Amino acid sequence: MLKNIFFKNKGPFNIQKIFTKHKFKNNIKIYDIKTLDQASKGDLTFFDQPNYKSSAANTKASACITNEKLSSVLPQSCLPVIVPNVLYSLAQATIQFYPNSDIDYPDDSLKNPNKSKYPSVKFGKNVFVGQNVKIGKNTFIGSNTVIEHDVEIGKNCIIGSQVFLKNSILGESVVIQSGCKIGLKGFGFIPVKEKNIKFPHIGKVIIKDNVEIASSCTVDRGSIDNTIIGENTYLDNQVHVAHNVKMGKNCMIAGQVGFAGSCTLGDNVSIGGQAGVSGHLKIGNNVKIGGGSGVVKNIEDNAVVMGYPAVSFKQFIKNWREN
Amino acid sequence: MLKNIFFKNKGPFNIQKIFTKHKFKNNIKIYDIKTLDQASKGDLTFFDQPNYKSSAANTKASACITNEKLSSVLPQSCLPVIVPNVLYSLAQATIQFYPNSDIDYPDDSLKNPNKSKYPSVKFGKNVFVGQNVKIGKNTFIGSNTVIEHDVEIGKNCIIGSQVFLKNSILGESVVIQSGCKIGLKGFGFIPVKEKNIKFPHIGKVIIKDNVEIASSCTVDRGSIDNTIIGENTYLDNQVHVAHNVKMGKNCMIAGQVGFAGSCTLGDNVSIGGQAGVSGHLKIGNNVKIGGGSGVVKNIEDNAVVMGYPAVSFKQFIKNWREN
Amino acid sequence: MLKNIFFKNKGPFNIQKIFTKHKFKNNIKIYDIKTLDQASKGDLTFFDQPNYKSSAANTKASACITNEKLSSVLPQSCLPVIVPNVLYSLAQATIQFYPNSDIDYPDDSLKNPNKSKYPSVKFGKNVFVGQNVKIGKNTFIGSNTVIEHDVEIGKNCIIGSQVFLKNSILGESVVIQSGCKIGLKGFGFIPVKEKNIKFPHIGKVIIKDNVEIASSCTVDRGSIDNTIIGENTYLDNQVHVAHNVKMGKNCMIAGQVGFAGSCTLGDNVSIGGQAGVSGHLKIGNNVKIGGGSGVVKNIEDNAVVMGYPAVSFKQFIKNWREN
Repeated sequence: MLKNIFFKNKGPFNIQKIFTKHKFKNNIKIYDIKTLDQASKGDLTFFDQPNYKSSAANTKASACITNEKLSSVLPQSCLPVIVPNVLYSLAQATIQFYPNSDIDYPDDSLKNPNKSKYPSVKFGKNVFVGQNVKIGKNTFIGSNTVIEHDVEIGKNCIIGSQVFLKNSILGESVVIQSGCKIGLKGFGFIPVKEKNIKFPHIGKVIIKDNVEIASSCTVDRGSIDNTIIGENTYLDNQVHVAHNVKMGKNCMIAGQVGFAGSCTLGDNVSIGGQAGVSGHLKIGNNVKIGGGSGVVKNIEDNAVVMGYPAVSFKQFIKNWREN
Repeated sequence: MLKNIFFKNKGPFNIQKIFTKHKFKNNIKIYDIKTLDQASKGDLTFFDQPNYKSSAANTKASACITNEKLSSVLPQSCLPVIVPNVLYSLAQATIQFYPNSDIDYPDDSLKNPNKSKYPSVKFGKNVFVGQNVKIGKNTFIGSNTVIEHDVEIGKNCIIGSQVFLKNSILGESVVIQSGCKIGLKGFGFIPVKEKNIKFPHIGKVIIKDNVEIASSCTVDRGSIDNTIIGENTYLDNQVHVAHNVKMGKNCMIAGQVGFAGSCTLGDNVSIGGQAGVSGHLKIGNNVKIGGGSGVVKNIEDNAVVMGYPAVSFKQFIKNWREN
Repeated sequence: MLKNIFFKNKGPFNIQKIFTKHKFKNNIKIYDIKTLDQASKGDLTFFDQPNYKSSAANTKASACITNEKLSSVLPQSCLPVIVPNVLYSLAQATIQFYPNSDIDYPDDSLKNPNKSKYPSVKFGKNVFVGQNVKIGKNTFIGSNTVIEHDVEIGKNCIIGSQVFLKNSILGESVVIQSGCKIGLKGFGFIPVKEKNIKFPHIGKVIIKDNVEIASSCTVDRGSIDNTIIGENTYLDNQVHVAHNVKMGKNCMIAGQVGFAGSCTLGDNVSIGGQAGVSGHLKIGNNVKIGGGSGVVKNIEDNAVVMGYPAVSFKQFIKNWREN
């Protein structure tokens, strides 16, 4: 069971204590909250969208927040917790385990880095580093950059100036240019007039080896899941990556592209400038998406699409000629 | 008459001194420059677009820069100042009252905050705060953030790192994530070859209680008017809010959305990622605008629109099927 | 021959040493690498796109990396170096001359500015300035701004807070608002699975007199060429300007517009919010591009276009009515 290194887990809690309005025959102990795929015995998970059925059928979680209709998919080993609003109950449960995960409270452990702790790291001026930050050899951190507690940065990385990093794990030879904001809480909340309920975000950002992220990008951390950028993937300036997005290897993402929450990209995907990808979509391997496109449905491997909404490139050219 | 707390008013001036080429029978004293709606007795206002007719008919201003055609709408109590280019004359008059409002000169009163002045405020490292900044209890300001003179921040706010704030008034429990730039001069100028005339921006940004603004957003202050973000409205990453925009309560604005100058949103408006709203438009209550849309006309209450240009969602789906 | 002031040139090299796999009859000395237009005697250039034919025919370079087919266009005075992948060979050659130009290594010469060196410049708090930075009289640099080595800033400029400047030359009376990142390496690389080859960027950003760049824009430096923003051109918030882009005078670029690499704009071009211009395009003088447009082909002088893909405004309205 992987421990959350960025948030202190206040658990375990008995399930009866988490859902006080429910009645459970078996008051099992819950140790953590995880996604359907990542949960293991002792974990609580959630299931609110039919397109995650196969993950639900195979989850190893001990309990699952869900609704009546979807609950039948869960395996015998997983106790269903039937609720009217899955995300609301998930938020309530998560905040019990991780109380300060619904707002990005600034890290008050920040200090100028102790050179003796980071003997082979180069720092620019006025860099602030939180507790337990790990930085690999030959990495260079630019001026006025802030790296909050427990962030891990591999060796041979170049982090530019005025960067903000929290809740992130970076591989080796990663380049992050000036002005990027990485690992912040995503755009998740339960709308309530007068005062929305802020959804806790306990995930992280994982950036693999040889990734390059150009200037002024924003990459939000996962909510329950993680946000992942695969090996050797390059992002141009001002790209927006929402929570839980997963990109494969060797992708090329041009300037000002936006990814809504929980979309996944295969390997070798290339996307032209200002394109947008809607939430929860699956983009296959080797897909090419033209600049300015708006992708609103899943895209199969090797497809070339363009347009708003995006269609096959052939169709796009045909539509254009006819107009 | 509300005083401008961010800019020092050099007035009052006699109207004859403001418009030296005009001849006035009654050389009235002008105390300030305000919008049609906000002006009271002693104020100068301006009127250059027919869609503000009802405001013009009811203005309490003592004088109004306008053109021949529109001037007939003004009430008897308001002296019309007929000019060939309303915005040019407005800029000239405004700069007389507020000489340094056409460029964002950095604040030279900035200092590290005096802990005794802000006993119940938490500050990160290397925060700079200008003269007369007010910050409420339990507010936390992140590292490397700059807050210029006279800004007011309510209690229980969380302001992230590397934020820049000027000419802004924030309510309570406001969250502003890392990298936001709020209160800067908007994109307003009178085009002149060789050297444009920069339009003075004397307005402010008003952010109401419980607003959340995600990472790397830009919110420009108003020109003569204010820019307002209503209670409990949430903005995702990289949203661009131009001068004089007014948003209602409980709006949800997804990533990379852009608002051109002076557009207004009702309450409970939700807008998908990368959509854009043109200048001076009125978006009603409970409107839903799909991701990637380009809105180029007013939208009535409760409408659901999508597309570029945005049409009703029904029509959008119909067009798509036919193509 | 103009010297590169931002990168140290390790040359000259004999051409045989640059291209070890080739055999040259005449082992000429190469002093620098330039574009077809800017190269003079002793320079190496490159030619890989037919639309640069007239520049190729008139180049003064002594040698040119190109392919078999295009090589016939070159003048007698220019030695063709025939390669399978022009950009790959160009990258290899460039990195020999300028070893550290493929990654934005933070400047380790940064210091708080010495007031005696800049007696008539105003600095905010915590400004860092690199070696040989030149700043003109009456210029004001905002707090937490970083200006790397050899940058030149003219007189009467206003540089906001939290700005990052490298490899840039600014004229007089330039205004750059808070959060802009200017002069960084552009999005250029040769895709290689496992580890892309980062394309060296040895160009600069040239910003002419009276330019205004609003908050949080990114302007990348040129690769071999320069990125240029012409006199009196204004950029609104969150504009993305890729490498080698050239804008003329008096342009108006609204918020969130994106320019792909190497596109050129004439004078007096105005572009509405969120529009995008594809790479290597030529936009004529006095062109108007509507908000949200996606420009995918060259546009002639005085044209008014809109749409995605952009068509004449007349056609755009016609298509809209028919739908």
